[in-house]
Amino acid sequence: MTIDRTKIRWNGWGWAAHKDELARREEIWTWLAGELGMPALLATPARPLESIALPVTRLSAEARAKFTELLGADRVRDDAYERAFHARGKSYHDLLRLRAGDLATAPDAVLYPRSGEEVLAVLAAASEFSVAVVPFGGGSSVVGGASAASGPHKSVVTLDLSGMDRLIEIDATAQTATAEAGIYGPAFEKQLQAKGFTLGHHPQSFEFSTLGGWIAHRGAGQGSGRYGRAEDWLVGAKLATPRGVLSVGGFPASAAGPQLLDLALGSEGAFGIVTEATVRLHAVPAASDYRGYLFRDFASGAEAIREAAQSGIAATMLRLSDAAETRFYRAFGALGKRRGIGDRLAQIYLDTRGFDDKACAMVAGFEGTETDVARARGAFEAIARNHRALFLGAGQGKRWKDGRFHGPYLRDPLMDRGVGVDTLETATRWSKIDALYVAVKDALEKAIRDSAPREGAHGIVSCHISHSYRDGASLYFTYIFPRALEREIAQWLAIKSAASDAIAANSGTISHHHGVGEDHLPWMAGEKGALGIDVLRAVKMALDPKGVMNPGKLIPS
Amino acid sequence: MTIDRTKIRWNGWGWAAHKDELARREEIWTWLAGELGMPALLATPARPLESIALPVTRLSAEARAKFTELLGADRVRDDAYERAFHARGKSYHDLLRLRAGDLATAPDAVLYPRSGEEVLAVLAAASEFSVAVVPFGGGSSVVGGASAASGPHKSVVTLDLSGMDRLIEIDATAQTATAEAGIYGPAFEKQLQAKGFTLGHHPQSFEFSTLGGWIAHRGAGQGSGRYGRAEDWLVGAKLATPRGVLSVGGFPASAAGPQLLDLALGSEGAFGIVTEATVRLHAVPAASDYRGYLFRDFASGAEAIREAAQSGIAATMLRLSDAAETRFYRAFGALGKRRGIGDRLAQIYLDTRGFDDKACAMVAGFEGTETDVARARGAFEAIARNHRALFLGAGQGKRWKDGRFHGPYLRDPLMDRGVGVDTLETATRWSKIDALYVAVKDALEKAIRDSAPREGAHGIVSCHISHSYRDGASLYFTYIFPRALEREIAQWLAIKSAASDAIAANSGTISHHHGVGEDHLPWMAGEKGALGIDVLRAVKMALDPKGVMNPGKLIPS
Repeated sequence: MTIDRTKIRWNGWGWAAHKDELARREEIWTWLAGELGMPALLATPARPLESIALPVTRLSAEARAKFTELLGADRVRDDAYERAFHARGKSYHDLLRLRAGDLATAPDAVLYPRSGEEVLAVLAAASEFSVAVVPFGGGSSVVGGASAASGPHKSVVTLDLSGMDRLIEIDATAQTATAEAGIYGPAFEKQLQAKGFTLGHHPQSFEFSTLGGWIAHRGAGQGSGRYGRAEDWLVGAKLATPRGVLSVGGFPASAAGPQLLDLALGSEGAFGIVTEATVRLHAVPAASDYRGYLFRDFASGAEAIREAAQSGIAATMLRLSDAAETRFYRAFGALGKRRGIGDRLAQIYLDTRGFDDKACAMVAGFEGTETDVARARGAFEAIARNHRALFLGAGQGKRWKDGRFHGPYLRDPLMDRGVGVDTLETATRWSKIDALYVAVKDALEKAIRDSAPREGAHGIVSCHISHSYRDGASLYFTYIFPRALEREIAQWLAIKSAASDAIAANSGTISHHHGVGEDHLPWMAGEKGALGIDVLRAVKMALDPKGVMNPGKLIPS
Repeated sequence: MTIDRTKIRWNGWGWAAHKDELARREEIWTWLAGELGMPALLATPARPLESIALPVTRLSAEARAKFTELLGADRVRDDAYERAFHARGKSYHDLLRLRAGDLATAPDAVLYPRSGEEVLAVLAAASEFSVAVVPFGGGSSVVGGASAASGPHKSVVTLDLSGMDRLIEIDATAQTATAEAGIYGPAFEKQLQAKGFTLGHHPQSFEFSTLGGWIAHRGAGQGSGRYGRAEDWLVGAKLATPRGVLSVGGFPASAAGPQLLDLALGSEGAFGIVTEATVRLHAVPAASDYRGYLFRDFASGAEAIREAAQSGIAATMLRLSDAAETRFYRAFGALGKRRGIGDRLAQIYLDTRGFDDKACAMVAGFEGTETDVARARGAFEAIARNHRALFLGAGQGKRWKDGRFHGPYLRDPLMDRGVGVDTLETATRWSKIDALYVAVKDALEKAIRDSAPREGAHGIVSCHISHSYRDGASLYFTYIFPRALEREIAQWLAIKSAASDAIAANSGTISHHHGVGEDHLPWMAGEKGALGIDVLRAVKMALDPKGVMNPGKLIPS
């Protein structure tokens, strides 16, 4: 059930066979150039793999022989495609490097273990031979979590876990499942749903990410309102470390001291590798209702979400776009379409109802039994009405759901035309949401202007609230900007730094669900405190005394 | 708002002024002797403090001078009452020692800091002078978490946090509160409720336990179904350690690496001292409905709870007594009362409906808006009916709620009459609940018989399910037994060990909400694994390099 790596793009998102419809639609590029204050958008194609020279593999003959002895020759790979495919994850920064042919972080070999025992043996050997080990599930990290950095070691191997994808057990009574960590989202869900269950974890990367990755970066799916984040659904995990196997958790709840689940959750391969996990399931919902609303402004939409969260309304998802995101999707969707009388009437209706360019679209999702869904929907409907929101119908919900995994595919054609697109996300408590939103938006807009390729060029900065809690919510920013082609890494870093500093200065966490990787490392000490970092280092030293595990990620050196 | 220590029993539970009604009711003792297979129950009074010689205080003059400099003389106490009061917590083992006049663990001094800065200064000084530090909130630990052990150090001080009891902030928008950790349950709730909020954390120790204690031992209140466990409601905490202050958490959710909240949650003072915490609140519920049911047997009652948890019914509490507990409370409640025609008719009704001695009582609690309560109650009612349970009315619920904090008061009069009473608790997943229940019950009954003071004497072992989750539930055992007066510590240990071994052998956690302390220490390595213990030790070394924090608890040496 795993995915053939050659069928996935090594330097972009998703299926290699995917057709980028956008590329051919010139009206989009003309429009977008205008939106970005650019005269035109030129072609900036990625370098083909054939034209790129990979660095010479540095793996010692002894280490290679040992890995081959452990796994067999066909599971120790160092052909160009394997090395390029595993060189980095899928962050904007990663793609900049990969598209430019910078494969400095290509691993010296890619290992494909098939069991926890094999992982353990590989980690022991890597420790012995001083080889850095980078775990790789789907490789969909958008924060530089998968780049094959060797750190202080002479060589680095990537451990591709996709061969460990067995569903081990479903406990129908406890409604839990135990599976190997390399299982992909669709394969896992398919097997669960065949038995009437679902994990319900659907990040945007769902099709190309794995159970172990969701845990290791502490992820959240789009339906986390109902199904919870990784830390909510994780019961227990096996962590293979250079010092042996550690089983953490395993109970519905426990007061037996600090729970060690965080050695798996959010550990990003720095302590060890999640090889197996037990997770909490739900029955496949009998009903599902996703629908659109239009709020008058961001504040009233956010307030509706807060009221819903604090009154315990069982929404699966409440996703509120800010005015910029609402306008962008509307304009983007209308491109190349003839504006009919229906559209004009709809606009007149919105105008007379007082919805102006501050209007914010929301998709509200409800899953469960028919009764649960009707109840939650009714309760949220009352809140929305109270805020004088407009019901946009089920069509909006369906469109969102149909395209829920499509977003990342848009990045490749944009990058083919000199346009950068990146996302970042944070969370804070409700009383700080407004200030955080304004500060990050301002920082992004300013940094994009300041680093633009020409005077007057600017970006499109949009945001949505995608995950909410009793005490706060997440903010997810998407920003599109004209690339400064001669200094695009520096440009990215300037924008990323400005936004991250604004997050840190405004009570936000540096990541709500993307993780740390290399990209958020500079903000970790600020968020965790010097003593907190000391604790993380002490834990790493206890489990990975040679420091071979995923160097340069998670823990500042 | 704190509690004057002289008004609380130093060697028993609760208010010193509390009248033990039980003591005078001779019919109870006659009945209980029969139930335990004993000819009679003799008086076994506790030794008065005046008759007990305390160990000479070992605190060095330098350390004492330093503490006095930091806190002032009136907050460095070493009078007999203070030392005796802080010698131990409130476990059965603690009370055996205290009642016998064994004050070997009396701290050499009791310090009363009034701020996080003072705690920090005291910890630095304690590290410098090699003085062990035992944090003490309400001192209500029932697992040996508060005993003033000096470990490898020459002296030990107890840090009584009851002077740190300020409510610092209520954030009405985010529905969070920040308070100093020494605040007692009732004082905290009173101030929250004055603003329309509640934490809803009501352990049986509620009146005599503190916010910091709830966090440090990873507790759960009786209403955890609605309000969550400590790990659910804790947003963030300040931890004072010998190496400085560590702020952990603070976000509604975060993917910024491992969350360090477990340095506070369940850390039991071994890493540092929780001085301040931010917690999630609920609006004070408009409605509250507690009601009784009678299930035909434990299995059908447990099944009803599982169905409720897995279908997401918003119960605040579902508390199912096993047949032994049901019979015991019924018989106990009937003692000394004339059996009227109503009682006889009720019995006939139960008989005809087929409820026999396997019947199990449940108290189901629902809180929230009127609508929420009606809905959850209705949904649970349907499940209960399906299992042919009998609705016993709101009176059962009211009686339980009125006496919800009364249980621990019963222990003192029992101990005055040669009777031991202890509790222990665990949790496992639904598919293992039956096996765990039978194994622990059998182990307790056998160990009590084997360690009884005379042939044929035996105990009363009862159990209830008090906390439930989608994937499992807790089991809470109460056992009453005739004490073997000449070897009562060994007797306790034999019973405790047998039960704990049964828990470990049957997929249970060694504690669901009491914590680890000294009593569960021998089972920690089994539960966490050798590597897990290494991690805990590494964390302790990073924060408490001199090992002064609460020695002998939590982490096996």
